[in-house]
Amino acid sequence: MKGFSRVVCDECSELLETAKKELLNGLARTTGYEFALTTELREDDAVVLGTLSSLQIQCVLSGLSADHLGEEGYAIYRVVKEGRQRIVLTANTAKGCLYAVFHFLRLLQTGEGVASISLMEAPKNKLRMINHWDNMDGSIERGYAGRSIFYRDNKFFADLTRVKDYARLLASVGINAVTLNNVNVHEVETYLITDQFLPDVARVAAVFRKYGIQTFLSVNFASPIEAGGLPTADPDDPVVKQWWETSVERIYRFIPDFGGFLVKADSEFRPGPFTYGRDHADGANMLAEALIPHGGIVIWRCFVYNCTQDWRDRSTDRARAAFDHFTPFDGRCHDNVILQIKNGPMDFQVREPVSPLFGGLMQTNQVLELQITQEYTGQQRHLCYLVPQWKQVLDFDLHSTEQGCTVAKVVSGELHHRPLGGVAAVANIGDDMNWTGHLLAQANLYGYGRLAWNPELSAQSITDEWVALTFGRNYDVLRIVSNMLLGSWQIYENYTAPLGVGWMVNPGDHYGPNVDGYEYSKWGTYHFADCKGIGVDRTVQTGTGYTGQYHSPHSELFESLETCPEELLLFFHHVPYTHRLRSGETVIQYIYDTHFRGVEQAMSLIDKWKELENKLDDSQFEHVLERLHEQASHAKQWRDVINTYFYRKSGIADERGRVIFS
Amino acid sequence: MKGFSRVVCDECSELLETAKKELLNGLARTTGYEFALTTELREDDAVVLGTLSSLQIQCVLSGLSADHLGEEGYAIYRVVKEGRQRIVLTANTAKGCLYAVFHFLRLLQTGEGVASISLMEAPKNKLRMINHWDNMDGSIERGYAGRSIFYRDNKFFADLTRVKDYARLLASVGINAVTLNNVNVHEVETYLITDQFLPDVARVAAVFRKYGIQTFLSVNFASPIEAGGLPTADPDDPVVKQWWETSVERIYRFIPDFGGFLVKADSEFRPGPFTYGRDHADGANMLAEALIPHGGIVIWRCFVYNCTQDWRDRSTDRARAAFDHFTPFDGRCHDNVILQIKNGPMDFQVREPVSPLFGGLMQTNQVLELQITQEYTGQQRHLCYLVPQWKQVLDFDLHSTEQGCTVAKVVSGELHHRPLGGVAAVANIGDDMNWTGHLLAQANLYGYGRLAWNPELSAQSITDEWVALTFGRNYDVLRIVSNMLLGSWQIYENYTAPLGVGWMVNPGDHYGPNVDGYEYSKWGTYHFADCKGIGVDRTVQTGTGYTGQYHSPHSELFESLETCPEELLLFFHHVPYTHRLRSGETVIQYIYDTHFRGVEQAMSLIDKWKELENKLDDSQFEHVLERLHEQASHAKQWRDVINTYFYRKSGIADERGRVIFS
Repeated sequence: MKGFSRVVCDECSELLETAKKELLNGLARTTGYEFALTTELREDDAVVLGTLSSLQIQCVLSGLSADHLGEEGYAIYRVVKEGRQRIVLTANTAKGCLYAVFHFLRLLQTGEGVASISLMEAPKNKLRMINHWDNMDGSIERGYAGRSIFYRDNKFFADLTRVKDYARLLASVGINAVTLNNVNVHEVETYLITDQFLPDVARVAAVFRKYGIQTFLSVNFASPIEAGGLPTADPDDPVVKQWWETSVERIYRFIPDFGGFLVKADSEFRPGPFTYGRDHADGANMLAEALIPHGGIVIWRCFVYNCTQDWRDRSTDRARAAFDHFTPFDGRCHDNVILQIKNGPMDFQVREPVSPLFGGLMQTNQVLELQITQEYTGQQRHLCYLVPQWKQVLDFDLHSTEQGCTVAKVVSGELHHRPLGGVAAVANIGDDMNWTGHLLAQANLYGYGRLAWNPELSAQSITDEWVALTFGRNYDVLRIVSNMLLGSWQIYENYTAPLGVGWMVNPGDHYGPNVDGYEYSKWGTYHFADCKGIGVDRTVQTGTGYTGQYHSPHSELFESLETCPEELLLFFHHVPYTHRLRSGETVIQYIYDTHFRGVEQAMSLIDKWKELENKLDDSQFEHVLERLHEQASHAKQWRDVINTYFYRKSGIADERGRVIFS
Repeated sequence: MKGFSRVVCDECSELLETAKKELLNGLARTTGYEFALTTELREDDAVVLGTLSSLQIQCVLSGLSADHLGEEGYAIYRVVKEGRQRIVLTANTAKGCLYAVFHFLRLLQTGEGVASISLMEAPKNKLRMINHWDNMDGSIERGYAGRSIFYRDNKFFADLTRVKDYARLLASVGINAVTLNNVNVHEVETYLITDQFLPDVARVAAVFRKYGIQTFLSVNFASPIEAGGLPTADPDDPVVKQWWETSVERIYRFIPDFGGFLVKADSEFRPGPFTYGRDHADGANMLAEALIPHGGIVIWRCFVYNCTQDWRDRSTDRARAAFDHFTPFDGRCHDNVILQIKNGPMDFQVREPVSPLFGGLMQTNQVLELQITQEYTGQQRHLCYLVPQWKQVLDFDLHSTEQGCTVAKVVSGELHHRPLGGVAAVANIGDDMNWTGHLLAQANLYGYGRLAWNPELSAQSITDEWVALTFGRNYDVLRIVSNMLLGSWQIYENYTAPLGVGWMVNPGDHYGPNVDGYEYSKWGTYHFADCKGIGVDRTVQTGTGYTGQYHSPHSELFESLETCPEELLLFFHHVPYTHRLRSGETVIQYIYDTHFRGVEQAMSLIDKWKELENKLDDSQFEHVLERLHEQASHAKQWRDVINTYFYRKSGIADERGRVIFS
């Protein structure tokens, strides 16, 4: 940025004010000197910021048109005119300008040259959302980084400084929507949509608005009863409809750009339309109708299954549930309804197949739900970087209409020409100083935002970006930390539940090994391990028929023991411990080998990290080192419990004679 | 009581007022007419109540002397003088008179004739205590009958009516001591011994005092730090000693007859003397010294073990812990210290051997700790009448000095001529209308009180008494309910953890089957089931050496697979599933058989109860019926989980081909 000393911008709007401030601050931080802000070009080098329509300068990138950029896209390019350089940050909208600023600053920070910069960017997904599972008492369901930044003791914080920092952080990676409260809407939170709390919600929404982020709320389907005093919440009842219409109008009086509702209904004991003999489409459409006049949307979660299953019942398969429940409604939901579908058919396990529901809906808006918070993946005590997992999901070809029908294209709406779509993910932040408990877990939030913007980015490039932004441009740091992050999911999988079987965790807190923890439960989560073998037969031929929910060729590939991807073997098949994998290894030996290896790998993370001593801030170094030690120690517990469990059950010894406790 | 119309008593004291009132009320309720109270005998039939020393009438039972009755005993007898009958209720003390009244009323209620009554009673145990695990927020640890009758929201109730009813109920079965708060003394409860709460404790103590019950408190060993602001709680520190002395003086200013302290120290994360390099005798004696001047005592719990054990460590055996910890201190504790020892070496499982610690202490006061609240025995959803279990414990001959060294004789102090001793038990009551959740669980509280008074009573007689007192004198009711109660422990054991192995429950709430629930935990609770066999080798020869803590012949009997009582087989030995029991049945077949049988028995309880329809109060009938249905249904869950677990693990089918889910 040699020679540059000014930022030129002659527009004023709430978002452009944010953009200018971020640009000036960011330039000062990265270059070390203050830039001046002026409204007119002069005869010197300048960074020019503004919407396409208002930019007075004639310095437009060749081929750039408003259509390419849409509502949130932007262009950044350098032009030289009369010997003077201009770096232009422009977009159709002020929001696009803000994103351009953050992109530009990212380039400066990561040390990318901007000498010949020329780029255009537009997000692939319209909705790029974060779901908070925060409760108003200050707790966070499945939160591992402290308490809520929004609430304490059933009140909103008066001081929203932390929320503002958070909004910046989200906007910098392109997030444009948040839900403020847990999808399990408890008693107090039911009143978020009433006069009692709307002034506070509006305060928070104002903070997010400055960063281009729309505010949503999770709502309780039984609100008309619980908050409205009505005798019913039947979606077909005119009084109920009227209640919702009035409630929605009230919300928009407080928050004119309110996003809409996120709904968990008829799921895990939450109320829903089933109570009244209605279905999910009825429920979602009723809310959608109340929101249509205001431009709001309904995001309806598909996490619906029988959570009081009898483990003795082998005919019910939880994995089938979302597809079975929701495909019959395809085409019945209004255009402002989106179905939010978890990446896999179960619940954020370390390894699951992609949900077949993405391939089962053609005429319905869809959102992919990911989980940034590491509920089943080490709870931010263990390093488990999830971008590689998410990439697998996004890139998965559903073969629903032709080749190339990836999950990314389905949920963006591109494939089926849907008006709405995108991605949502459960937040991993809390009021811990470093936001995410484990410092390196920040990479998951960052990576999620980047993938939400552009699912085609590679895991490597996202990772390198985050490391450079976080720790600076030291090559050793980049190499080591990127390598640690990118390998961590596989490592975690190695010492936990093997071959896609999942659920070998302690019930309740979902932390630590418990092979039979969910085996005799009501949650539909079983592995059926006996003295001969293990796994769930989900084939059409002899099992639950789940494989039939996929399009060809997946249905056949999963169905056959010969072609089933081995990392998902036990998800789809029940096999003897002596079943030989394609490597020649038996299943039991594979379990032992991966568990011994996983611990070695977890221990090697410590050694890798130690190479960075003196190359990082001391407190960051020590903090991560402590977590890695904890991880290695807990990985041993995992290894020993899993190995002992299977040794006791199978009676088959480790071929290599390592220590397995009897 | 034909012809009787008056009660004669010329004494006044708080306890005698209670006794008179109870006698008059009781007579009115049982006879249907009001008795007059006078201070002088007249020329008619009368019930005479008073202490031996003050009784003016010459109607003393032949051979009766003050020595026989002691401080709490009493005599009841009928004399005829000049054609007039007197039934005399007398004792050395007013408290004895109160107990005489309750005994007399019991006889009237159960329909025992009093025409030729002549009895003397004195309690075998000096201390007959109930421990409340109530917290001041109103919750009760391991409580299954509602919330606390003492506290709500960290305050004492203003209205103590319910406490008064409770005091009557306890006194009627001879209980003479209560602790008001949980042995796990949390933050708020730490202040019970301070000015903040002592006025309230004194109010409650006054209610109990009227019924001859002494009040105790559980104390936090770290009180000098947490409530006193001292830097240490070291029992050897003069400032700490002074703090306790001052605190104890303060308590006695509020409650002159305060009983003393119950202490859980260095156990399950509670603070204790170990922190300061002191031992349990040091800790207990320090508190005892503060209490000696006031006549108070220290009850020190022996529930001390390593609760952060590594399951991989096969050398540590939790069963050994109490004996190993406490026998070295034998003779070192002051005379006002009592060690409180749980009946078994683990923790109130449905079946355990008797704790060897009872046989290991010769010069130490001991109290037997039982658990009335059904933590591991069905939580008052299941019928599990524990008097037969307690009888086994009390009657167990320790062979510590000679034959006939029963637990009952050890803890009463009789065997080793100890100044103090007795029994304590964890309460099963709460604010439920019927006190105990399950109506029939009242029998456990009643039975405990009766056994505490006289451990030689038979289970049958206690049971018959309770049924008659509760449901009246219908023979069918008596036969059926007694039979249900007396069989229920065996039934519960049949469908739960087999052959003494224990711990096959869900961790945390301890309800419902979870065979591996405690298997890889830190609690020292393992069964070591593998594909070949199950059980814990606690022999001296090849195991943990626990059998060596018993005196001969138990040590040899438990040591040998041939002579070990089979109901404790898996507690002492690890055996193959194919091991044949003395009946010829294999262990695996025994597991299947008892579990199928247990469910049938649980179902037959429903049929038995149904025979009582129209013979009982409708609401009582329906309430118990509902619980029995719940029990039968949950028993099936137990049966199926246990059977499936062992079928999966052993691969051995049921010989009789019944349904075991695979």
